[in-house]
Amino acid sequence: MNMNDIIYKKREGNSLAKEEIEYFINGYVKDEIPDYQASALLMAIYFMQMDKRETFELTNAMRYSGDTIDLSGISGIKVDKHSTGGVGDKTTLIVAPIASACGVPIAKMSGRGLGFTGGTVDKLESIPGFRTSLEPEEFLGQVNDIGISVIGQTAHITPADKKLYALRDVTSTVDNFSLIASSIMSKKLAAGSDAIVLDVKCGNGAFMENLSDATVLGNIMTEIGESAGRKTVAVITDMSQPLGKAIGNSLEVIESIETLKGKGPSDITELAIYLSAVMIYIGGKADSLEEGRLKAEKVLESGEALEKFREMIVAQGGQGEVIDDYSLFPRHSVQKKILAKDSGYVSEIKARNIGLASQHTGAGRATKEDDIDLSAGIYLYKKVGDRVVSGDVLATFYGNDKLKVANAVKEAEKAFIITTKEVECPLLIKKMIGMSDEQKE
Amino acid sequence: MNMNDIIYKKREGNSLAKEEIEYFINGYVKDEIPDYQASALLMAIYFMQMDKRETFELTNAMRYSGDTIDLSGISGIKVDKHSTGGVGDKTTLIVAPIASACGVPIAKMSGRGLGFTGGTVDKLESIPGFRTSLEPEEFLGQVNDIGISVIGQTAHITPADKKLYALRDVTSTVDNFSLIASSIMSKKLAAGSDAIVLDVKCGNGAFMENLSDATVLGNIMTEIGESAGRKTVAVITDMSQPLGKAIGNSLEVIESIETLKGKGPSDITELAIYLSAVMIYIGGKADSLEEGRLKAEKVLESGEALEKFREMIVAQGGQGEVIDDYSLFPRHSVQKKILAKDSGYVSEIKARNIGLASQHTGAGRATKEDDIDLSAGIYLYKKVGDRVVSGDVLATFYGNDKLKVANAVKEAEKAFIITTKEVECPLLIKKMIGMSDEQKE
Repeated sequence: MNMNDIIYKKREGNSLAKEEIEYFINGYVKDEIPDYQASALLMAIYFMQMDKRETFELTNAMRYSGDTIDLSGISGIKVDKHSTGGVGDKTTLIVAPIASACGVPIAKMSGRGLGFTGGTVDKLESIPGFRTSLEPEEFLGQVNDIGISVIGQTAHITPADKKLYALRDVTSTVDNFSLIASSIMSKKLAAGSDAIVLDVKCGNGAFMENLSDATVLGNIMTEIGESAGRKTVAVITDMSQPLGKAIGNSLEVIESIETLKGKGPSDITELAIYLSAVMIYIGGKADSLEEGRLKAEKVLESGEALEKFREMIVAQGGQGEVIDDYSLFPRHSVQKKILAKDSGYVSEIKARNIGLASQHTGAGRATKEDDIDLSAGIYLYKKVGDRVVSGDVLATFYGNDKLKVANAVKEAEKAFIITTKEVECPLLIKKMIGMSDEQKE
Repeated sequence: MNMNDIIYKKREGNSLAKEEIEYFINGYVKDEIPDYQASALLMAIYFMQMDKRETFELTNAMRYSGDTIDLSGISGIKVDKHSTGGVGDKTTLIVAPIASACGVPIAKMSGRGLGFTGGTVDKLESIPGFRTSLEPEEFLGQVNDIGISVIGQTAHITPADKKLYALRDVTSTVDNFSLIASSIMSKKLAAGSDAIVLDVKCGNGAFMENLSDATVLGNIMTEIGESAGRKTVAVITDMSQPLGKAIGNSLEVIESIETLKGKGPSDITELAIYLSAVMIYIGGKADSLEEGRLKAEKVLESGEALEKFREMIVAQGGQGEVIDDYSLFPRHSVQKKILAKDSGYVSEIKARNIGLASQHTGAGRATKEDDIDLSAGIYLYKKVGDRVVSGDVLATFYGNDKLKVANAVKEAEKAFIITTKEVECPLLIKKMIGMSDEQKE
């Protein structure tokens, strides 16, 4: 086999054989195939697409390119959850304790972020003492003991995806369905859970800007999951405005705690309950989605979900006291506000601009090497549909660098659109894929 | 400017600005832009094409990526000639002395070959003592003294093209009109001649397999030449069977000498006279193509062209005696024949298979590092249209390695098709581009 011939074959619009896809992935991981041939193939894939079979085989080749996690030592149906990423998306921090409190074992590996804010692992690290890197036995032991652990992805999981993603990022070959789907699903399959709930974000703050693209991606990923023998459900949710009101690492942990206390913003609360219900149902802890929802609501109200979160923090070395005392989180020294110039209704808060503004505050990384300011970020006082009066505070910006915060404000000013007409809230949960109608009852 | 954005822009089908093309080429030559971004852009260009303006600007950026040759010290209209490459194409060795003998100054840089046989420079080096690398003053001085010099391309001419060509070769991005045209024309423009005659080969032994593709390429190249202020003519000629009867380095020099003696095969003789006529006409040494043809025929018959070739050999340190004594050329030790299995007419001699067979004998390089066996190659006793009787020798194979020669025979056996019906010779000269009808009179 020869890489040049494989590039040619794809360029001419042919399907690649399983052996050719494996030859590429295995050779690329071993540095036997150079970046310049990989990027030429990626661009050819961008133009000529991969069919379902190829996408599945690409996913599998990446899945097995490094270590895979064996969760068979944990009893019960392990359910993983993944978000395609958006602004203010702290859902994992809320749904993991809820689902766990309902008896679904959560053995989850999360990533660091490159973009608007840190990833789940960065967010958790804003809790003083919290360890995101556990040895495998410790990780599995904790899930068996208390039913939940969220740690960072180990270095040896899907190295092919890491290498390819870095290459796609600098060769304009990110936005292809097969490449996105295989990247996400290879990691999820390698991470060993029995079932997977995918939160596919849709809107200007997400990869998928419209519902039809998000549906295509959701379909491809659920098909890959099912082909691999994993129950997989994709929920398409709104990302036209940020999720919740807090954007930034410690700010999002605080909002998650507030939500677990029943005092969170309505959108993040609604989404967390919805996704938890799906996880509880496909995790076999409820006989219907509706029963899953009732169980989720119950553990929220009773405080069991909050206590599960505290238990996890303590088990992983963190200060459980943060739950009652937010002053224990990293502190900011700079603060700046945006005020409404007009009265009316908020018709848009462009997620993409808020995301960039969040990155400017120091909450997100522009390059892998950047340090994150865990205290930095944005708090939104108004959301789409809210009434505002000229002079109202729209948002506050936090950080430790005056210039950075000022840049963030400048970027965020483009985000808010205020109209005179009353505005409806965007529909948060748009579609579910991978669950038959009877299952939805 | 940012290379990722440039890739994205082309991927989306937009035209690149002059500055973007220059940013790419200059950065790539300086190793500031990595191969993996260059190959992604090349693949995007393959799919989305470049328009005329972009192709011209790419050509210019490559043209000025290294040294350019100043031929202003030579009086008269300097005419360059280039072939897009085929099997048995030794035309330069014949037309250069003919045109020079008619008063057209020939200051030509030629390449080495990667493929079926060596390039013109490799062929010339089969003449004992012949130096293909001259200092600039020596080169210009020789053209002023005797009106002709053919040397190897210096290392500093169009480094961007060298680097890009090597990359295209291993990333399945060779066969794009803009990339082929800019590669050829950047070298021709950097080489400094006032007028350019392009021999665009067409058929299964060439890049362009059909007349319509060859026409597109010819049009693009002549437009680039004219845009750069150089009189440029493209002649589309047949490459469905090898040109002439000899394939291989010294074998082709011998056939060229035979042709200059008036004893060459009819096809190579016809093509050499035709291309010489064009060169003589656009070099201002004839008032019409027809007069150019008469002048070319005259210097062939009188032996002046042969003497011009001898003069060049001697001026560049070679043994002029080779012209009368072919035993001075490198010798082969192995020889093998193919015989006709049937009687009838030769209907096809697939140039591509004969080319590969030539490479197998040792006459061509498979990789840049390969040594060439200057004595190796193939001699065809029959050409398309010839009558054969079962047992006739179709071709002889020469070399110094039994295994290589045997492999060559195996490949070449696929090339010959013999039918019972009489067959017409393919039309050798198919089309001329870049010369108006009145000029053709």
